Amino acid sequence: MKTLLLKKDEVRRLIGMAEVIGAVEEAYKAFNSDQVEQPDYIGIDLPSPRGEIDFKLGYYKANEVISMKASSGGFIDNPTAHGVPNGMATIFLFDGRSGALICVMDGSLILGLRTGASGAVSVKALARKNASTIASIGTGNQARMQIRAINETMKIEEIHAWDNNPDTLSKYKTDIESEFGIPVIMANSKKEAVEQADVLITTTRGKGSLVEADWVKPGTHIVAIGTDQRGKQELDPEIFRNARIIVDSIAQCTEKGETWHPLNGNIITKDDIHGEIGEVLLGRKPGRESDDEITIFDSTGMAIQDNTTASKIYQNAIANNVGTFFQFFE
Amino acid sequence: MKTLLLKKDEVRRLIGMAEVIGAVEEAYKAFNSDQVEQPDYIGIDLPSPRGEIDFKLGYYKANEVISMKASSGGFIDNPTAHGVPNGMATIFLFDGRSGALICVMDGSLILGLRTGASGAVSVKALARKNASTIASIGTGNQARMQIRAINETMKIEEIHAWDNNPDTLSKYKTDIESEFGIPVIMANSKKEAVEQADVLITTTRGKGSLVEADWVKPGTHIVAIGTDQRGKQELDPEIFRNARIIVDSIAQCTEKGETWHPLNGNIITKDDIHGEIGEVLLGRKPGRESDDEITIFDSTGMAIQDNTTASKIYQNAIANNVGTFFQFFE
Repeated sequence: MKTLLLKKDEVRRLIGMAEVIGAVEEAYKAFNSDQVEQPDYIGIDLPSPRGEIDFKLGYYKANEVISMKASSGGFIDNPTAHGVPNGMATIFLFDGRSGALICVMDGSLILGLRTGASGAVSVKALARKNASTIASIGTGNQARMQIRAINETMKIEEIHAWDNNPDTLSKYKTDIESEFGIPVIMANSKKEAVEQADVLITTTRGKGSLVEADWVKPGTHIVAIGTDQRGKQELDPEIFRNARIIVDSIAQCTEKGETWHPLNGNIITKDDIHGEIGEVLLGRKPGRESDDEITIFDSTGMAIQDNTTASKIYQNAIANNVGTFFQFFE
Repeated sequence: MKTLLLKKDEVRRLIGMAEVIGAVEEAYKAFNSDQVEQPDYIGIDLPSPRGEIDFKLGYYKANEVISMKASSGGFIDNPTAHGVPNGMATIFLFDGRSGALICVMDGSLILGLRTGASGAVSVKALARKNASTIASIGTGNQARMQIRAINETMKIEEIHAWDNNPDTLSKYKTDIESEFGIPVIMANSKKEAVEQADVLITTTRGKGSLVEADWVKPGTHIVAIGTDQRGKQELDPEIFRNARIIVDSIAQCTEKGETWHPLNGNIITKDDIHGEIGEVLLGRKPGRESDDEITIFDSTGMAIQDNTTASKIYQNAIANNVGTFFQFFE
């Protein structure tokens, strides 16, 4: 029995963003087709200045792959004390037919890729067809990843970007303009950026409302990425009142996503959530129905996205003879 | 950052039973010293003829190792359909200081070793000092492992063995006599074996009482191994009425161990459980107090046993330059 080992550089070479977008679409559809089991994750919280290490399990019945992602984050002393990043990830793939460990791959790129792809999938499904302008609140790694992904699914004419750190913002402009040739306008205020948006992306570590409801123009599609645990917040809950709300997982988003805030504030009830994105992708529920409505995609991230993305990488590795086989037993 | 990979054969060579017994003692003591976190395990149940795959997480604070054991079992078609065993296991070790994946080792030997060691630890702590005769109800792999372990801690004069399969019983006799030179008497009935016991070991997959209360002579120490989930049973619950009951984990044993049965039958209450074995090992609670009392050790197995055993194997590998380093990222 042989297990394939894949290094970070190999993972990087083995998959492109278009394939990740396909894998994430597949994940969302599978989730809404009774093809997925995702038990609650388990983890260990370590005392400061360390962070946490989490284990997220996903089973995709249709392709018989069980994935376990071990990911750490928040170990702020790691680079100086241990010479490793402050967060690391490894993905273990098991063959659901036999239980065998078929692959161990570095997982540090996959979270960024599949989260970027989730925004792009939502843009394809929910943004106005003539959407051309993006507002980016937050200009860190995931903000770039969103552009990299959305650029595969929409013609981006310009990006209005805001960050509370002017250096980060300026670096984002330089990087995005050189990588994609898309003009970036550095906004003087969040309001100035948001008002321009056909697609509004929020990717901050915000812990309070960053975007006021009356800044958001009709027809905007909002990709709410940053809020994936209780305590985080990026949007004025009032934005939800008249918006079409689509989530990745109702269970997760009502518990720890951006959607928790308007629910908690009694601005909406659970019945006001239009549905899960997999339902829209499967055609079971309509997506956007007019050019005037505001759509919100609340993404908290699911183990099945890691599963389908890692499976695609594994398949590509096998097809291209990339990686190192290791035999743990005869 | 380098990860050490250890094959099954290397694991086998890297640790002896005496060290496993030490590791399991350490695990029990750590568990009762606020040095352990063991979240509830997560898993996937697959449809028959497949089994389940479980993920058990343990954190040992004192040595800063986080272990995750992935283990499968019950895939009965595996040998014919996939050329692999019907159960497999892998242990992943993470450095609690940085979150880094430091080791991936085949884990298929560890469950057997550490479960065998748990019986031996209990014999050392709870059996009569002059105990010399063992009764073994069940003669499979774990029954042999118990002998291998207990043989490290007690002089075994003879073994009275019973199995419902005469071929298995006969093979056990041959193997034990040749490996350890201990005479094995094949009992004609369970009663005949049990009546001889200073130490009674039960290692079956029993789903009902196998051992009647009035067969058990005063002074017997019972090592109850087989029952580690609801639905399994090996002992007449009446045995618990006047026995000194020691468990590995009160939370686990009252939920899914042999101890669940007398609790469920109102033969004992939780207060009748003398304590956890770690408390006895730490000297916080007495062990056996007379040569006449019956002691029961109910072992359901804990993630921390995998943790300390795998850590010892890892340390031995590093010290002896055994294994293969693999660099998942620069």
